Amino acid sequence: MKKQTKPKHLGLIVGGGELPQQVAKLARQAGMMVYPVNLSGFAKTKSELSNGPWRSIGQIGGILEDLKDADVSQICFAGIVDRPNFSTLQLDEIGRQEMPRISTAAQQGDDALMRAVLSVFENAGFDIIGPDEIAASLLAPAGQLGTIEPNQQQIADMNKAAQIAKAVGQLDIGQGAIVCRGVVLAVEAQEGTDAMLRRCASLPKSMRGTRKEPAGVLVKTPKPGQEMRIDLPTIGVETVQRASEAGLAGIGFVTGQTFLLERKAMLAQADRLGLFLFGLNLQEIE
Amino acid sequence: MKKQTKPKHLGLIVGGGELPQQVAKLARQAGMMVYPVNLSGFAKTKSELSNGPWRSIGQIGGILEDLKDADVSQICFAGIVDRPNFSTLQLDEIGRQEMPRISTAAQQGDDALMRAVLSVFENAGFDIIGPDEIAASLLAPAGQLGTIEPNQQQIADMNKAAQIAKAVGQLDIGQGAIVCRGVVLAVEAQEGTDAMLRRCASLPKSMRGTRKEPAGVLVKTPKPGQEMRIDLPTIGVETVQRASEAGLAGIGFVTGQTFLLERKAMLAQADRLGLFLFGLNLQEIE
Repeated sequence: MKKQTKPKHLGLIVGGGELPQQVAKLARQAGMMVYPVNLSGFAKTKSELSNGPWRSIGQIGGILEDLKDADVSQICFAGIVDRPNFSTLQLDEIGRQEMPRISTAAQQGDDALMRAVLSVFENAGFDIIGPDEIAASLLAPAGQLGTIEPNQQQIADMNKAAQIAKAVGQLDIGQGAIVCRGVVLAVEAQEGTDAMLRRCASLPKSMRGTRKEPAGVLVKTPKPGQEMRIDLPTIGVETVQRASEAGLAGIGFVTGQTFLLERKAMLAQADRLGLFLFGLNLQEIE
Repeated sequence: MKKQTKPKHLGLIVGGGELPQQVAKLARQAGMMVYPVNLSGFAKTKSELSNGPWRSIGQIGGILEDLKDADVSQICFAGIVDRPNFSTLQLDEIGRQEMPRISTAAQQGDDALMRAVLSVFENAGFDIIGPDEIAASLLAPAGQLGTIEPNQQQIADMNKAAQIAKAVGQLDIGQGAIVCRGVVLAVEAQEGTDAMLRRCASLPKSMRGTRKEPAGVLVKTPKPGQEMRIDLPTIGVETVQRASEAGLAGIGFVTGQTFLLERKAMLAQADRLGLFLFGLNLQEIE
């Protein structure tokens, strides 16, 4: 008779984008039972996770109940969640209790906000694991991916963009920067990477590259010391598409601390559009 | 018989915007003769300066000749000039000689670029004076201007935005930042202040203020150690208009190191739209 091991149970708090689905898939492959709680306004309305319960982010008590009902001890946050408007959140009772502390922490920046949110779940007895622990296979490897090789100018731009991204990360501003021929074209704050790439595309052509003559590099880095369990940078097909539209020559990211979603499609897209993709070591940036 | 003092001659290199006209006016009021050289593509095509010679920015030899013909010893750069595309500049002979050094310096950032440009004129024997020396009356005073007073949250946001603007200035990225309720909404790089304000206006309302409930502050600072003779921040009616459209509560700027153009109209506009205007001391920021 085969020995039956009780599968581990994982509570998955589902935000926007493709990452939660990927995490769920990999968790199941690792033998875990996945219990999703979908965040209204962020989680995809149609996915294999969407038949789990739905909660607004002010319903902290409801989310805790869902997780307890599912009898999970480990939970994982995955996917995009924008900063809420604290004054219009629909709160349940636990939400009302916890929100003053969370919104005060939010004034210190994104990272303090995330730590405050996580502490609510830790205080309720849950272990929080990062999506990177479950989905390690999605993390970016080191060095050149794809077939396009950066030239000397592009390597110099990538190194400078990495320094800038790290420095603005230290100020808890954001995770990305674009440098073209030595000049900082854009720095990411609350608008996000896509909006930063769009505005880069709208700069005068004298400042930036073009599809025909690409120049400049986007680099994303996690903020140094940031809460890794909730907010690692992600790069996907759309990032490559938009970088190409902005005339960039390539994208740099931090080895082991960046999720590459749909990696195969992303590599094919980068090769087709002539962009390089490169994994940097955060320690070596400076 | 009245003693005749020979008036001083000032060569004025005219870029975009309203500042050059203001500088010319104040220089004449101070008894100087003004000889403008208009930069094609930047200087206003119709202004009281536009009957002076026109030069493209690659015609360095031509600009030097114009200045020598005018028999000036002091020159002043005023107005907006964007970074050029060095590969498509139309160069005259001196331009061809000087451009390799300038475009190499440009890779170090905006400030190195400006120093390299100024050194060409210094080496040709000209004294360069900053527009702030002529137009000191346009420089921002300290403290609250206008009738709107910032509240405690807005003062905290202004102080944080000032710290961020100073820090990103130290990295030679840009001159401005927007903070709203403790969160860095936007950081300025090559896109300029207007574009930064526009993208702030397009952020979700949950993150920012609105005309009805304004929140958040734009602060502009010169980059610490930057070349003051060519690139001080300027604020005018349009800045106030765009800041209001972005839902901001006010604008902070550095006392004595910011040009306030059309001050009267700007103050009236700020009062009407309910924005505060505040002069900060750069030394006290941190």
